[in-house]
Amino acid sequence: MTISEAAAPDSSTADATVSPELRVAIMGATGYGGGELVRLLARHPSVRVVGLAARGRDDQPVAVSHPHLSTTLHTIVADIPDDVDAVFLALPHGAAAQMIGELIERKVAVVDLGPDFRLKNAADYPRWYGFDHPRPELLATSVYGLPELHRRELHAIAESDVRIVASPGCYSTTAVLSLAPLARAGLIDDVVVDAKSGVSGAGRDPKPEMMFGEVNESVKAYGVAGHRHVAEIEQELGLLRGSAAGAPVDFLPHLIPMTRGILAACHVRTARPVGQAELDDLYVEFYADERFVSVVDAPPATKHVTGSNEFRVFVHSDERTGRVLAIGVLDNLVKGAAGQAVQAFNVLFGLPEHTGLEQLPLAP
Amino acid sequence: MTISEAAAPDSSTADATVSPELRVAIMGATGYGGGELVRLLARHPSVRVVGLAARGRDDQPVAVSHPHLSTTLHTIVADIPDDVDAVFLALPHGAAAQMIGELIERKVAVVDLGPDFRLKNAADYPRWYGFDHPRPELLATSVYGLPELHRRELHAIAESDVRIVASPGCYSTTAVLSLAPLARAGLIDDVVVDAKSGVSGAGRDPKPEMMFGEVNESVKAYGVAGHRHVAEIEQELGLLRGSAAGAPVDFLPHLIPMTRGILAACHVRTARPVGQAELDDLYVEFYADERFVSVVDAPPATKHVTGSNEFRVFVHSDERTGRVLAIGVLDNLVKGAAGQAVQAFNVLFGLPEHTGLEQLPLAP
Amino acid sequence: MTISEAAAPDSSTADATVSPELRVAIMGATGYGGGELVRLLARHPSVRVVGLAARGRDDQPVAVSHPHLSTTLHTIVADIPDDVDAVFLALPHGAAAQMIGELIERKVAVVDLGPDFRLKNAADYPRWYGFDHPRPELLATSVYGLPELHRRELHAIAESDVRIVASPGCYSTTAVLSLAPLARAGLIDDVVVDAKSGVSGAGRDPKPEMMFGEVNESVKAYGVAGHRHVAEIEQELGLLRGSAAGAPVDFLPHLIPMTRGILAACHVRTARPVGQAELDDLYVEFYADERFVSVVDAPPATKHVTGSNEFRVFVHSDERTGRVLAIGVLDNLVKGAAGQAVQAFNVLFGLPEHTGLEQLPLAP
Amino acid sequence: MTISEAAAPDSSTADATVSPELRVAIMGATGYGGGELVRLLARHPSVRVVGLAARGRDDQPVAVSHPHLSTTLHTIVADIPDDVDAVFLALPHGAAAQMIGELIERKVAVVDLGPDFRLKNAADYPRWYGFDHPRPELLATSVYGLPELHRRELHAIAESDVRIVASPGCYSTTAVLSLAPLARAGLIDDVVVDAKSGVSGAGRDPKPEMMFGEVNESVKAYGVAGHRHVAEIEQELGLLRGSAAGAPVDFLPHLIPMTRGILAACHVRTARPVGQAELDDLYVEFYADERFVSVVDAPPATKHVTGSNEFRVFVHSDERTGRVLAIGVLDNLVKGAAGQAVQAFNVLFGLPEHTGLEQLPLAP
Repeated sequence: MTISEAAAPDSSTADATVSPELRVAIMGATGYGGGELVRLLARHPSVRVVGLAARGRDDQPVAVSHPHLSTTLHTIVADIPDDVDAVFLALPHGAAAQMIGELIERKVAVVDLGPDFRLKNAADYPRWYGFDHPRPELLATSVYGLPELHRRELHAIAESDVRIVASPGCYSTTAVLSLAPLARAGLIDDVVVDAKSGVSGAGRDPKPEMMFGEVNESVKAYGVAGHRHVAEIEQELGLLRGSAAGAPVDFLPHLIPMTRGILAACHVRTARPVGQAELDDLYVEFYADERFVSVVDAPPATKHVTGSNEFRVFVHSDERTGRVLAIGVLDNLVKGAAGQAVQAFNVLFGLPEHTGLEQLPLAP
Repeated sequence: MTISEAAAPDSSTADATVSPELRVAIMGATGYGGGELVRLLARHPSVRVVGLAARGRDDQPVAVSHPHLSTTLHTIVADIPDDVDAVFLALPHGAAAQMIGELIERKVAVVDLGPDFRLKNAADYPRWYGFDHPRPELLATSVYGLPELHRRELHAIAESDVRIVASPGCYSTTAVLSLAPLARAGLIDDVVVDAKSGVSGAGRDPKPEMMFGEVNESVKAYGVAGHRHVAEIEQELGLLRGSAAGAPVDFLPHLIPMTRGILAACHVRTARPVGQAELDDLYVEFYADERFVSVVDAPPATKHVTGSNEFRVFVHSDERTGRVLAIGVLDNLVKGAAGQAVQAFNVLFGLPEHTGLEQLPLAP
Repeated sequence: MTISEAAAPDSSTADATVSPELRVAIMGATGYGGGELVRLLARHPSVRVVGLAARGRDDQPVAVSHPHLSTTLHTIVADIPDDVDAVFLALPHGAAAQMIGELIERKVAVVDLGPDFRLKNAADYPRWYGFDHPRPELLATSVYGLPELHRRELHAIAESDVRIVASPGCYSTTAVLSLAPLARAGLIDDVVVDAKSGVSGAGRDPKPEMMFGEVNESVKAYGVAGHRHVAEIEQELGLLRGSAAGAPVDFLPHLIPMTRGILAACHVRTARPVGQAELDDLYVEFYADERFVSVVDAPPATKHVTGSNEFRVFVHSDERTGRVLAIGVLDNLVKGAAGQAVQAFNVLFGLPEHTGLEQLPLAP
Repeated sequence: MTISEAAAPDSSTADATVSPELRVAIMGATGYGGGELVRLLARHPSVRVVGLAARGRDDQPVAVSHPHLSTTLHTIVADIPDDVDAVFLALPHGAAAQMIGELIERKVAVVDLGPDFRLKNAADYPRWYGFDHPRPELLATSVYGLPELHRRELHAIAESDVRIVASPGCYSTTAVLSLAPLARAGLIDDVVVDAKSGVSGAGRDPKPEMMFGEVNESVKAYGVAGHRHVAEIEQELGLLRGSAAGAPVDFLPHLIPMTRGILAACHVRTARPVGQAELDDLYVEFYADERFVSVVDAPPATKHVTGSNEFRVFVHSDERTGRVLAIGVLDNLVKGAAGQAVQAFNVLFGLPEHTGLEQLPLAP
């Protein structure tokens, strides 16, 4: 791939004597989520990436699948080392549930970017994902890895033998963070979540409808029969509200001609009129201590957060319609996937939550 | 601009002895809507373009503003000829209302692509457009140029001295055609219209936020305080329903990184449950005789209609949420502007409605 | 695919009594080139499309592969009818050569969009395409279908039993038309052709490197070991120059993030100094009678010709470097493929050359 | 702009006791180059940004011009502080030369991203930039800030009172680094540099031709009469070669539909035949100690380096044509502008050259 690498970097990680190094591995390293994990963890000052795995790619330099990461000099291995502190899983749904037993036995912390441990109700797996969960007893102890909502639970399992973080879906993070303050205040009567995503959320396998010629200069809706992330969104809004039952969420995703970014426009019919001042207070207070969340006063663009772990939300009380509009944006591969996974990992290991996630967004 | 034009075309228009030639002019020819009118009318078999006007561009070859139209050899003129049969106006709002008196006196048919004659209630102009309408008495006789809904009225004014066609807004056309069958059946209880548009709808004047570097790889909502097209949408849905009052439409437009195309996702809470079969019947019947409308059985992409005068709509009854979803797509510069204007012009002049509008969509 | 088609169109073709209808078929109708042929031929006033074939797609509505063409109501068939006047082939290389025997026997005119009959020297096939030509004797009688250069030969075979038009490659058309006047004047001493293409030229099969996420916001060169179109370019420039030998053409193609369009920048070292006035005269005269070629006085953009059969060229004599720069643009699917094939077909059947090709470019 | 910022970050800079903090200011902070400087310097461990200036923007939060940088909480000021160690200038050409006197008097180090001190020959300023240089005597002492070629000179001025770094143009960096090993070896007989750039290189002022609707789905050449960066390219290649005279460089830039990135394809006619092995050795050796340069064995895409300070180059000896092809890519706003400026700044201040520049590229 590369004839002459850039000159070998002196280590950019912190001094091992002051900051104990955590050894981590990534399974499913050749997809978009996996690549983003490599990008972030390779510059994480308390982490050493000691193994990248990906089916059918043994001994392949990471540069083959991720040319932009060629300077990391990593190579895909058949098996990750035994002595890892944590493993990140970026695998097709069902795969993590299959291998979780072995990982638990090794007492390694697991941060799963897939859906296998996100839903608390085992019956949701056959319904939304088409498989019976092989280890339903683990759904109760795994933590939904949205630190803004479940930080305490992440701390709670930090010393456990079984540490499973179920990193949320990209749409779910966008929708739930956009609506959380309203949900907790019990103000959501009914909600339409109309979301727009770049194509990287669809993964990397070549599909005819994801070719440049089909996507560029076009927009379309998909998943009209019910997108899987609805299950997570309803679960989390229910938890915030404090009651499982609630009006079903009308969720519609769109594919738009860009690579990264999700914007969710949440059209809320509120239980009672909510004015702009109350709305602002509600959101500002809710997110007051959150490093990665900004409440903004103009509709945000996805480009404002590209490449970063930021989430931005705008709320508007519409006097004409009596509705509330909440618009959230994030980078689906960072705050919507790898970045959020690293954030939860940091919490789990007692590191400052933003460690390795301090990059500012890249624009234009 | 051009050193050597392509060899002079022999006339592509119909033989003057068999197809009487209509003389038309375009005011505001250098914008995107104006350019699209030139593109379509230059190949319209019953039309001869006899004058293109644009402020500050006198004597400029059309190729300066529209290099793609250089082979038409048109030049911008200071004044359009007196003896035109029809004039198309593609001007900033307010301008058409100012000059309408003179055009009426000349008894020329007017097809206005701007908003000056779309709203029936004169009070809506100061509210939505910030000006008092100078000729409110003309609002009653002008026809909202959506042939699928107002064909009869277009026929009715064909022999009048005053012929004003108010060609609909691009978002309005998308939303109204997506919802018309439901509206006429009285089935809309409440509706969220979440729309996505390419940038050409924002016109051609250079604005910082429309630069490629700002738009590409980004999506944002705008007009949260109330987009002007809401007034038209509510007017037309009210007419279809047969009663002026109705729940206000929650309309939210987004700018996405593409040039042409609008997609409107209409999330409808229906007055009573409506199953898929009833929904299909309703739409198929409503649009049975419409040349430019297709009811499709999968979510359409804007790319399916690019460059054509087609409108496509998909409807879905969602059992989980109890809502109806209607998704419509069109090319904002054709069916959303110039094409629809030509379609209404054809009706007004007794031509087959699709004359000059037979181009198939351009994909990929 | 479609629940309710747009209302059935009345025929848009010319009156059968005055314009005898030619019956044509398309093999390979589901690719991009095939779709473009359908788009153009469906509106060609002297043509009736009587058969679309595509391997493995029997009985499939054309809307499945080409949703934008759904209103044509065509269906893919297993076998094209016997009584066709012409067949267009849009097939992988080698396939046309295999089936040519049968088509010749049926005395049907063949317009091949692939490379199987473009090269006059049979030895070029194993070298550039990796197969031995099964019917080398046909290479002499087939005509390279660039009407601007080979119109007379197209006329010459019009009454033959064997009528094979080898429609040129997209890069070849761009480079050859950009350089033809200089080549014929014997002025090219040495040339670098640096070309940029949209992705549709790479066809429609899903490939990882053609996914939107890989192509957008990126540019790369490819084919550095020698792109196949070089063989055609050198053949045609040699014919124009009147001698087979000449400096090899340095040709480098790039993939850029757009769907349609090719731009070729041809950097020419001339045999003797050529000033701007001489250059202009040379090009204007050479293309004086060409309907589809414009010599322009500013660097053209591919967007100036999108969707049309136009070719535009700009020439510049650079006093500082002593070189000549020729920049040509076209739409790779129209003048670079389907449109040019229809143009040659028109010549072959004695129709006005621009019949069915009068659409103006689509911009923005 | 922002109602509620993300929670105040704890300082991400290094401990002041171990790493003395350098105080820097940026003039012209609201353009694309300025924004990129803020992005990089805000995370530079040895730097504290103490002043951002931009004409007509006094007291404006940086978030107004750079929403993506809102979490930095910077505000534009009228005057930068007196006690800065270095100032970065991202200004229109001519502006830096005007204000340099005052900056020199204050003995502040100047890193100028504009062209005012790049050219050694004062006569080149009226020729290429249309102004007479007001301080020609400074051209000799300023250093062309390409560390890979002028590192020693940067060190040499580190202790001087007058420290002016003339950061190279984006095209110049790409072309010069692509060709440097060949130039130093005296192997370039003649070269065509055909470059492709994203739009951010054209700056941020709204121009009609930079609107999304004009740029997307299009490519065009520009600057055919002579792009200003030619002067730098010829100067640096001359220095490498060791003789001022040489064949003029044929340089042609293109605008392609992307935001970031430059690719330069350099078509070289060599003084004598150069085989692939010799070519590889030449490049590998030349760049052996360079942290930011990789010699790669397949044509690189601009996306491989987006957001990073990397430069990648591919070289190919073409047996058929006898030419050498060198293809270089970089991110025009990082290695082509702000990143390279920070790199030179690091050298000037004795910091490890990659300090603050360790971000991996962002893909997809």
